[in-house]
Amino acid sequence: MSTEQTDSIFMKAAIDEAMKALEKQEVPIGAVIVAKGQIIARAHNLTETLNDPTAHAEMQAITSATNYIGGKYLTECTIYVTVEPCPMCASALGWSQISTLVYGTHDEKKGYTTISEKLLHPGTKVRKGILAEECKKLMTDFFRKKRKK
Amino acid sequence: MSTEQTDSIFMKAAIDEAMKALEKQEVPIGAVIVAKGQIIARAHNLTETLNDPTAHAEMQAITSATNYIGGKYLTECTIYVTVEPCPMCASALGWSQISTLVYGTHDEKKGYTTISEKLLHPGTKVRKGILAEECKKLMTDFFRKKRKK
Repeated sequence: MSTEQTDSIFMKAAIDEAMKALEKQEVPIGAVIVAKGQIIARAHNLTETLNDPTAHAEMQAITSATNYIGGKYLTECTIYVTVEPCPMCASALGWSQISTLVYGTHDEKKGYTTISEKLLHPGTKVRKGILAEECKKLMTDFFRKKRKK
Repeated sequence: MSTEQTDSIFMKAAIDEAMKALEKQEVPIGAVIVAKGQIIARAHNLTETLNDPTAHAEMQAITSATNYIGGKYLTECTIYVTVEPCPMCASALGWSQISTLVYGTHDEKKGYTTISEKLLHPGTKVRKGILAEECKKLMTDFFRKKRKK
C-alpha cells in the first residue's frame, strides 16, 4: 500500500475521533498514533469536558501511546492529527521524539509553525494536507454554528 | 507582606515538590499554583515514573488547578516553578491565561525563552530568579550524580 493510501486510512480514523469531540460540543480535533501499522492510541479534544486546557487530542494520544509502550519515547510511531498541532502539542511531540507527524489542515492562528518549527524534534518528519478539506470543514462548520448562537 | 517575601514562601513550596521528584530519581522540578494567597495545586515532575513525556510539574499543576477551580482558565492564579518552563509548559500556561509566572532558575537549553516569549499569553506577568541558586543546585547536583553512574 502506498504512503498516500496509508495516510488516508489513518487520517480517517483521526477524523472519526474529531467527530466524537464534535458530539460533545468540543472543538473537533482528533488524533491517532500508529506503530507497526496498528493504531495504539486514539484521542479527541476534551478541554471543555475536562475543564483542562492541556486536554488536547495530541496530548492525550501521547500519554496513551507511551503508557501502552511502557516508555516515554515514540521514536517508531506516527501521529495523525486532523489539525496542525499548537505549540504545546508540537513541543510535547518533540519530547516524545516521535518519528513522524502527519496533519490535515493548517491552523493559521494557533499552529506551531506560527512560532517555530524547532518545537518538534529535529528528527521528526512532517507530512501535511492529508484530507485537509474534510478536516478544515469540521472546524469551520463548528465555529460558524458557534458564532450564530 | 512584600511580593518578595510571598514569592520566597511559595517558591520554597515548589522546591519541596522538586525534592519529592528527586526522591523518585526524577529530574527535580516542582511547581505550585496559588490563588488568593492559597496553594490550590502542587506537583512535581513524573516523566519517568509515569513513562509520560507530558508529565512535567507545570502540566500536572495546571490540570490539578483547573480541576479544583472547575474552569479551564487560571486568570487569577500564579504558578511558582523551580525551573524556567519548557515550550510545552509555557504554551500550556498560555492556554490557561495564567495571571503570573514566577520561576527560579533559567534553563539555557530547554527554556521557553530559547524559542519565543510569545508562547505565554500576552497578559501573563513574569518574575524570575526567585531562590535561583537553590533551584539550580538541585538540578546540577542531580545531573552530576547521573553522569557519574
